[in-house]
Order: sequence, then structure tokens, then C-alpha cells
Amino acid sequence: MPVSRSLLDSLRKIIPPLDGSLHKGQSGRVGIMGGAQDYTGAPFFAAISALRMGADLSHIICAPSAANAIKSYAPDLIVHPVLHHPSSESFSPECLKSELSSLLSRLHVLVIGPGLGREDYMISHAKMALNLAKENGMYVVLDADALWMLGQDLGILKGYRRAVITPNVMEFKRLSEAVGIDPSTPPDSCASLVSKALGGVTVLQKGPEDVIATNTRGVSPKEAHDISKLPDNVPRERLEEETVTKVDTLGGFKRVGGQGDVLSGCTATWLAWGKCYETGAFGDGSISTTHLPHLAAVGGSIVTRTTSRFAFQKNGRALLTQDLVGEIQRAFLEAFPDSDTPGQKSGKL
Amino acid sequence: MPVSRSLLDSLRKIIPPLDGSLHKGQSGRVGIMGGAQDYTGAPFFAAISALRMGADLSHIICAPSAANAIKSYAPDLIVHPVLHHPSSESFSPECLKSELSSLLSRLHVLVIGPGLGREDYMISHAKMALNLAKENGMYVVLDADALWMLGQDLGILKGYRRAVITPNVMEFKRLSEAVGIDPSTPPDSCASLVSKALGGVTVLQKGPEDVIATNTRGVSPKEAHDISKLPDNVPRERLEEETVTKVDTLGGFKRVGGQGDVLSGCTATWLAWGKCYETGAFGDGSISTTHLPHLAAVGGSIVTRTTSRFAFQKNGRALLTQDLVGEIQRAFLEAFPDSDTPGQKSGKL
Repeated sequence: MPVSRSLLDSLRKIIPPLDGSLHKGQSGRVGIMGGAQDYTGAPFFAAISALRMGADLSHIICAPSAANAIKSYAPDLIVHPVLHHPSSESFSPECLKSELSSLLSRLHVLVIGPGLGREDYMISHAKMALNLAKENGMYVVLDADALWMLGQDLGILKGYRRAVITPNVMEFKRLSEAVGIDPSTPPDSCASLVSKALGGVTVLQKGPEDVIATNTRGVSPKEAHDISKLPDNVPRERLEEETVTKVDTLGGFKRVGGQGDVLSGCTATWLAWGKCYETGAFGDGSISTTHLPHLAAVGGSIVTRTTSRFAFQKNGRALLTQDLVGEIQRAFLEAFPDSDTPGQKSGKL
Repeated sequence: MPVSRSLLDSLRKIIPPLDGSLHKGQSGRVGIMGGAQDYTGAPFFAAISALRMGADLSHIICAPSAANAIKSYAPDLIVHPVLHHPSSESFSPECLKSELSSLLSRLHVLVIGPGLGREDYMISHAKMALNLAKENGMYVVLDADALWMLGQDLGILKGYRRAVITPNVMEFKRLSEAVGIDPSTPPDSCASLVSKALGGVTVLQKGPEDVIATNTRGVSPKEAHDISKLPDNVPRERLEEETVTKVDTLGGFKRVGGQGDVLSGCTATWLAWGKCYETGAFGDGSISTTHLPHLAAVGGSIVTRTTSRFAFQKNGRALLTQDLVGEIQRAFLEAFPDSDTPGQKSGKL
């Protein structure tokens, strides 16, 4: 139930080697879908955190009204203002679909939700992107407003096991209700039941401890979409299992808005690494791809909580989420010492 | 008259505990209304100061022409560019009212004024927001151009005791004239008379010493709007009293523009904490809610003056208001030592 040694060993195996053997992109190409008129910070924090975790490229797919502000936060991001309002002359569904297809084909993982907002057209665009991601067998993270979208229509994600959802207390409560969890269920069991109800999607329930649950019991082969999309050389384990991991790594005590975006960005980078590992860019291929969402969620949780603790130690009550970004490297090395050592091959870690 | 020990004790009680027991938002959700074509720094300084004081979320409600600049200053803010010019296609009074209602329902306190400007339509939007805030029993701070607005029409705030106004020398002079204070009145008594004339609104008169006055003598029950809006569990003291506190904490000697915005932001966070305290998010409930505006104004004054001193010591004549923002944490700890200690419950402070 706590983070096991073997789980940490598996995580170490999907950290890309830092020895000059990889080329640009092989440590992860991450996309964040979100950013609307009122919300520009959330996608930025997710995207910059993905880079500070170690991804090579970080893209944001957002509404035109959000693009200039997001671009101004950091020149390191690539910002695509393609999520037009349907009333815009620049909009056509075919055009958007083609743009999204082209963009997603270059990414390893897509985070949907930070700063997405709940306007009908943004939700509709997000659904289009999610469907394309599923067709491509991409890893996805759903957070924030995308969890609201999921609560309205569970079918959009059900059974897609290359997904991690990251609900906070309120979002988890709404999702539990949406999937019909009995309110008298012991709190400890809820995350696993939500995962089961969603056909094995990995649930990262944020809280005093983060609970990561992947429950594929009773999942029909038809629901386990992901399997069919794997390259031939990837080991197939059609698991029927329940895995629950609790991460109690000490975090900070300030609950400033935006910290969830750091978590979704860090988790996305783990998933992107998993994708690179899966496709043979590095590593020994010993990790079953069906475990990657669970591993990534645990890794994202450990790094983000450590990051939050370090930033809180420096800033106390004055903590802003921008303070977290600069601590990700130190937190990563605290959690995974020696993983940055040049010349160390991941297979030997 | 100087800051009493019991007043400091009361302030300590409304500082949220930093022990992990609160969730996001329970240390304050602050809104700043202001930001027009020519004025983008003022609402930013108020909003970021509120966060650095310890609020969890900070929103800015501004004109569209100001939004991109404000957003670019910090991704930690949430910026709502809803204050359209009436000639804009995007404007309708019903739509704005509905947007403001929805926004304000999520906030604990609203600061009106920083960078508001004096254009008719912005003043009209500000009045709409103030009325909605009063209907909701929200705490409000009026500063800068909102004080000019108040001078034109005292009725918009009269008797609303959940308000703090923060006039500087010129603004105070104009307000004194507007409420009809005899020019020969001893300067020491003026703040209290302005408070009385406004039906008990707390006045924070900025100057070499800050004078904070709350004078409810002669206030009719009808004028004391706030009382009726209190939750049932809040102690009711219908005070008829005059409280004047002088804050002579040493500040900096550079009078660079923007420091007043830091004060309004810091005061807003104290009020937001007061609201969270009042609704039982933390604390022992022993502080009467009628004292909160006075307490918050004193707390805001102490922290801002200390912040200004620290920033002045480092920057001297070159001082900018952005230099203050980074000193808020240290100033807060100087004024309220041990208040950041993890595990310390506010009730025991």
C-alpha cells in the first residue's frame, strides 16, 4: 500500500538516461490542452513543470484569447492558439480536427483540463482531442475542468487504461457521485472503486495522502482499448488486478491555487518517459506497459509533494505556485538520487 | 490609541493555521476590481500582495484593454476581462451582472479601486459590483478611484460596516469635505468623524502615522446593514463605539507610486481570513465579527509599513513597489512571529 521498493525500481527504469545517447524529443514531448480567456496560469504551470521535470518539448493548445498571455510567461513553451470559438471566421470543425491530429501525432502525452474552462465549445474541442488521443493510443491526464466534463459523460474515458485522472477533494466527490459510489463506502476504498467504475483508468486522488488506484477487475477486453494500440514488441499482460498505492511524502501546508497544475505536468512527463521507454528509445523493456499510468501517477505525486515541501520551507504562508517550479529539480533528485548522473544508463539503475 | 496587546492577540487569532488542516480557498479568496487601459500595475500589486500575505486565490476583474498586460505579470493570478465599454458588442448590463454575481459568490472580499480610472462606465460597473457585494454581506475595501466615486455619492457605502476605506492625504481631504467635516477640526479627530459620517465604515487614513478609526456612534440599526447578513452562529454585538488606533510602525521613506496597492491587498487578505474565521473554517469563534474591519485595517497597516521599511533598507531611493512584494513574508513574520510554525493552531497562538 505504501510506495514499494519494486515500484520505485520500476520508476527508475523509465527515467531517460542523461548520457548524450538520446536526441531531442526522446525524453518526452508533452502537450497541455487548456487556457481560455480567464485562465492562463494553469496551462502554463502544467507545461513549465513538465519541462522542469525533464521533458524535451512542451506544447500548449489553447484558445486564441489566452495565447499571448501564456506566451509571455516563458519563451520555452510552444503555444498553439487553435481552440477557436465556433463563431470565429477562423473556425471549422474539419480544420480543427486536422490541426489537432497533426499536433497530437507529435506528442507522447496530452494533459486535458488546466484552464480549460467550462464553455460548451471548449468542452467540445476537448472531447475531440480526447478521442483523437485515444485513437492514437496516447497517454492522457485529465484534470480540473476536464474532470467536470468526465463527470457529465463517463463514457468518454471509460475503459481507456492509458489515462490518469487527478481529482482534488471536491472533484473526487463529484466523480464518486457520478459513478454511483455508495456514500457509506470507507474513504480508503473509494479511489479503487472509481477506477473500477471507469474500467481501469488510474485515479490519483489528491489529499493529505495521495491515493493512487488502478482497478481493472471485471474490465472486459473491449473496454481495455489501450492494449490493441501497443506496438508488437511490447509485452502484453492483460491484468485483472487492483493496485492501490498511498503516497504520504510530506508536502507543503499552503494550499495556494495552481499546485495541481504542477502535479499534472510532472505526471505527464513520467507518462511521456513511459511512452519513450515503451517504444524502445531507451531502457531494457522489462516494465509492462499496462503499469505505466499507475507508475507515472505515483512518480508525479512523489515529486510534486516534495517540490511543494521545499517551496513551502522557503516561502511559508507567502507561497505562490511560481515558487514550486524552481524546486522541481531538487525535489526530483531528492526522490530519485543519482538519476541525473551523466553516463549512467537507465538499465543499470 | 497605539496598537494594544489585545488587538494584536485578536489579529493572531484570525491568522489561518499552517498545519495542513485547511483545503484550498480556506485561507482566503480575494478579488480586486480595477485595471483599465492606462492602469495595469495597481490591480496587479494589490492582487499579488494579497497572495504573498497568504491568500490562496487572487482574482482581478478588469477592462479587456488591461487584461493581457496584467496576466503577463504573473501566472498566479486569475484575470477576468469582463468590464466592457458599453459600446462593445460583448456588453450587456444583464450579462455583466450575472458574471459579477457568479464571480463574487466565490470570493471572501472585494477590493474596488486600484487602477479603476474615472471613466463613467468603469464607475458604473464598480457601483454594480459594490451593490452585489453588499447584498452578499462581503467584506470590501475601497481605495484610489473608488474613493473618488464615494466622494461623489456617499450613499453607496454609508452604513455598510463590512467596509474599509484607505484614503491617502489628498483622498482623505476630499472625503472630509464631502462629508462636511469642519476644516478647523483637530487633525487627530478627523478620521473618526469621517467614519461616523459614513455610518461606521472603517477609515484607514494613510500618513506619517496611519490612523484607523471605526465610529459607530449614532448609527441607526437600519444603517448597520452588515448585521443582518451574518450567519446564525456568529456572535452579534451591536456596538455603539468609537475605536481609533494609530499605527506608527516605521515604514520606508520613499513615496514611490503603488505602495497603497500593497496596503489594500494586504488588508484584503486579513478581511478574507476574517471571513473564513467567521464561517468556522478555523479558530475559536471568540472574535466578534463587528471588529473585523478595524482589525484588518490595523493588520494591513502594520504589515505594509514593515514591508516598506525592509524594501527601503535594500533599495533606498531606487525603491520600486515590486521590491515590496518580495518582502511581505519577512514583514509578516517580523510583525507576527511564530505564526508560520507548522502545527501551530491559530486558536492557540
